Amino acid sequence: MAARKKTAKKKTTKTASKAATGKTGRRAANSAQDKAARVAAINAAKDDVTIQQIREAATDVHKHIMKKAKPDLSFPVRSLKNVSYSTKRGYFEIGKQKKVRTLTVNTVKSFAQTLRMMGLSKELVETNDFATKRDAYYQSKNWEDAKFDEQSESDTVMDDIEALFSTRGTSREQLRFVPDEHGGAVAGQLVVLDPDRETGEVERIDCTRFGSGAYSIPSTVEHLSFETDAKFILAIETGGVFQRLQSHKFWQTSNCILVSLAGVPTRATRRFIRKLSDECKIPVYAFVDCDPYGISNIYRTLKVGSGNAAHLSQFFCVPQARYLGVTPQDIVDYDLPTHPLLDVDIKRAKDALKNDPFFKSHKSWQKAIEQLLKMGVRAEQQALAKWGLNYVIEEYLPRKLDQRANFLP
Amino acid sequence: MAARKKTAKKKTTKTASKAATGKTGRRAANSAQDKAARVAAINAAKDDVTIQQIREAATDVHKHIMKKAKPDLSFPVRSLKNVSYSTKRGYFEIGKQKKVRTLTVNTVKSFAQTLRMMGLSKELVETNDFATKRDAYYQSKNWEDAKFDEQSESDTVMDDIEALFSTRGTSREQLRFVPDEHGGAVAGQLVVLDPDRETGEVERIDCTRFGSGAYSIPSTVEHLSFETDAKFILAIETGGVFQRLQSHKFWQTSNCILVSLAGVPTRATRRFIRKLSDECKIPVYAFVDCDPYGISNIYRTLKVGSGNAAHLSQFFCVPQARYLGVTPQDIVDYDLPTHPLLDVDIKRAKDALKNDPFFKSHKSWQKAIEQLLKMGVRAEQQALAKWGLNYVIEEYLPRKLDQRANFLP
Repeated sequence: MAARKKTAKKKTTKTASKAATGKTGRRAANSAQDKAARVAAINAAKDDVTIQQIREAATDVHKHIMKKAKPDLSFPVRSLKNVSYSTKRGYFEIGKQKKVRTLTVNTVKSFAQTLRMMGLSKELVETNDFATKRDAYYQSKNWEDAKFDEQSESDTVMDDIEALFSTRGTSREQLRFVPDEHGGAVAGQLVVLDPDRETGEVERIDCTRFGSGAYSIPSTVEHLSFETDAKFILAIETGGVFQRLQSHKFWQTSNCILVSLAGVPTRATRRFIRKLSDECKIPVYAFVDCDPYGISNIYRTLKVGSGNAAHLSQFFCVPQARYLGVTPQDIVDYDLPTHPLLDVDIKRAKDALKNDPFFKSHKSWQKAIEQLLKMGVRAEQQALAKWGLNYVIEEYLPRKLDQRANFLP
Repeated sequence: MAARKKTAKKKTTKTASKAATGKTGRRAANSAQDKAARVAAINAAKDDVTIQQIREAATDVHKHIMKKAKPDLSFPVRSLKNVSYSTKRGYFEIGKQKKVRTLTVNTVKSFAQTLRMMGLSKELVETNDFATKRDAYYQSKNWEDAKFDEQSESDTVMDDIEALFSTRGTSREQLRFVPDEHGGAVAGQLVVLDPDRETGEVERIDCTRFGSGAYSIPSTVEHLSFETDAKFILAIETGGVFQRLQSHKFWQTSNCILVSLAGVPTRATRRFIRKLSDECKIPVYAFVDCDPYGISNIYRTLKVGSGNAAHLSQFFCVPQARYLGVTPQDIVDYDLPTHPLLDVDIKRAKDALKNDPFFKSHKSWQKAIEQLLKMGVRAEQQALAKWGLNYVIEEYLPRKLDQRANFLP
C-alpha cells in the first residue's frame, strides 16, 4: 500500500512536456494528471478496504480456532435460482442464499485452499500485481498439501471468494484476479489515461490517433480514467463493421466512441464500457445482429449481466445500454436479406420470453421477439451492405441516431 | 487509382509538427513520411497490377465470347493433395493442379457470379475500400440473377478468385477482400506508420505508449510501415502471459515487440508479423503452450501456413519464426506441472509425425514430439507460475533468450 500511495504523489503526465506548449496543452496535461491522481487515490482507498476485508475474514477464522470453535466461511449461492432482476438497478443481482463451509476433517483441504487463495489476493494487492485463474492454479503447486489437483477446483475457490467479497462491494478486479482474455478494440473521440504501475507516470492514449488500427483494452481497467466530449458509445458486435466504421472515421462525423464487442463481450470490455459511460455520463448504444443470440446473449449480457455470474453484475453490466439495432422492424423497414431461424434460435427466443427476468419485465422487448418469431427469420448487421458497403455509415446509422427515443430498452 | 496517387503526394506526418522541434524529431518525421510514401507508392503500383490482372482475366473471357468460343476460367485446386512443403522457401505451397470452369448452360450462374465478384474487387481497389466475405455476400443481393443464395457459395467463389490471382502473386488483401476477425494485440519497441485512407496523412503510432493497453492490429495491414530498433518479435499464445509481459514492460528490458496471438493467429496477425519481420529484418520467436495444439496448430500455422489455404502461405506465413518454448525438454528442466495428454492430443501429435510435411522434414521436431508422446503429458506456458508469477519474466525468458541457437526450427 505504501508503495502505491507514494507513486500516486509523483504522478506526472508523459505527454505533458510535449503538449504543454500552449495554455490549452498545459490545462489538458494538468487535468489528466489530476484525473489520474483522483482515480489512483480512489483505488488506493479501495485497496485498503480490500485488504481490511480479507484481514477481517481471516481474523474471524483465527479467533474461532483460538477459542477451539469450528471456524466457517459463508458464500452466496451462485446459481440461477439465487438471482433476481431489479428493474430499478437495472441488472441481475445475486440473492441472499448462502452456503456455509465449516472446517471439518473432510473440508480441511478446501478450507485451507480458500484461505491461501485469499492470502494470494492480499499479496497481489500489496504488490500491485495480478493473477489469472491459470496463474493462481499454478501458483498453488508450491502450496504443498494445499495445492490444487485440477484447475476446476481452484476456479471454484476463486469464484467463491469473489462471490463472498462481492457482497461487500469488492470486485474480482479489486482482488487482483483478472481474466485471461483480451479486451475489445476501441477507436474514436476518447483519451484514455493510464498511470504506469511502477512510476505512476500517466500515459495519455488518444484513440483518434490509431490510423486504421485501434486501442486494445487491457485485461483490467480499474486504474484507467478518461477524457472525452463524445456524445455516445457505439458497441458493435462484429469486427467487420467495427473496421468499416473505424476506417471511414464514423467516430469523427458522429462524435462518438466505437467499441468492438467481437461476440459476447469479455469482462474487461464490459467493465471498460460501464466505467467510461458512468464516469463521463455518455449513453451506450448496442449495434448487433438481429437474432436471438445477438439480442438475448450479446445485448442482454452487456446490459444486465449473466445469470450464473450475477455476483459480478454490479461491476460489469451496463444498465444504461440501449438497443440501436438491428431490430426485427428494421428487417421490414430496410428490406434486409435474411436467414431462416434455426431450431436453436427459436428455442433461445422462447426461453428468453418465458424465463428471462429482463425480457419479462420489458413489454417492448417481448413484442420485438414475438415479431421475430412470427417472421421466422434473422438478419446480420452486415445485411445492410445489400444497399451499398457504406450504406450503414451514410444512411442507416444517421437515420437511427435521429430517433434515439425509439431504441429498445 | 488517380485518387490514391494524388494522396500519396500530399502525404505529411501528423506528429511532424509536434516532433519536429529538434533535429532528431525532424529526421524521424521525414523518415516516417518517406517510409510511408514508399509503401504507398509500392501499394499504388501493386493496385495497378491487380487491376491489370483483373482486366486481363475478364478480357480473355470477353475475347472468347466475341469469337463465339466457350470462355473458361481455371483455378488452382485447393486441397491438401495439391500442397507441397518447400524447405527452401519455408512454407506450404499450392501445387499445379487446376480445375477449369467453362461457361455452359449449367455453369452460367456461377460463371457470372465469379465475374461480378472480380468486378467488385476492381471497384474496391479503385475506391480504396474493402469488403469482408459477409459484405460481399450481401452486396450480391443487388446483383439480380447473379445474387448468391447462401454465403457458403459466395465464400467459395471468393476463395477461387483468391487462389487464381495468388498464382500471379496477388494476395487476397490486394484484391481488397479482408477478414471479419480482429487482429491481435501489440506492445513494445515499435512505431507503426499508418497513412489516412483519404488524406494520406501519416499517423505515427508508438507502441511503447499504451500503458497497460495495447495496439490492436487492423484487419488489413498492407498499407502499414514500421520504425523499430527492436531485437526480436515475441509471439505469445495466451492473453494472460501477454498482459503480464506488457504490464511489467518486458519489451523495455528486452528491447522487443510483443504480439498476442490469442490462440491460432488470425490472418491479419500473421501478415502483420511477417511484414514487420521482413521489412525490419528482425527475428520472430514463438512462445506457446507445450502441447500438440500449440506446436502443430498455432506454431505450425504461424510458420508455414495451413494445408487447406496453401495459396495464401506466400503472403501470410512467417517462415523465419522459431520456437522459443515451452518445449518438451522445458517440462523436465523447469519441473513444470503438467496435464496428461488427451486422446485428441495423441492423435494430433501422431498425425503431425506421420502426415505433416513440415514436421517430417525437421528431425529435431520429430524428436521433440516423440519425447512429448513418451512423457504422455502437456504443459501450459502459465505453468511457469509455479515458481512465482513473474518467474517467466525474471528467469525463464532471459535464460531462453541466451540460448537462441537451441530454439526449435
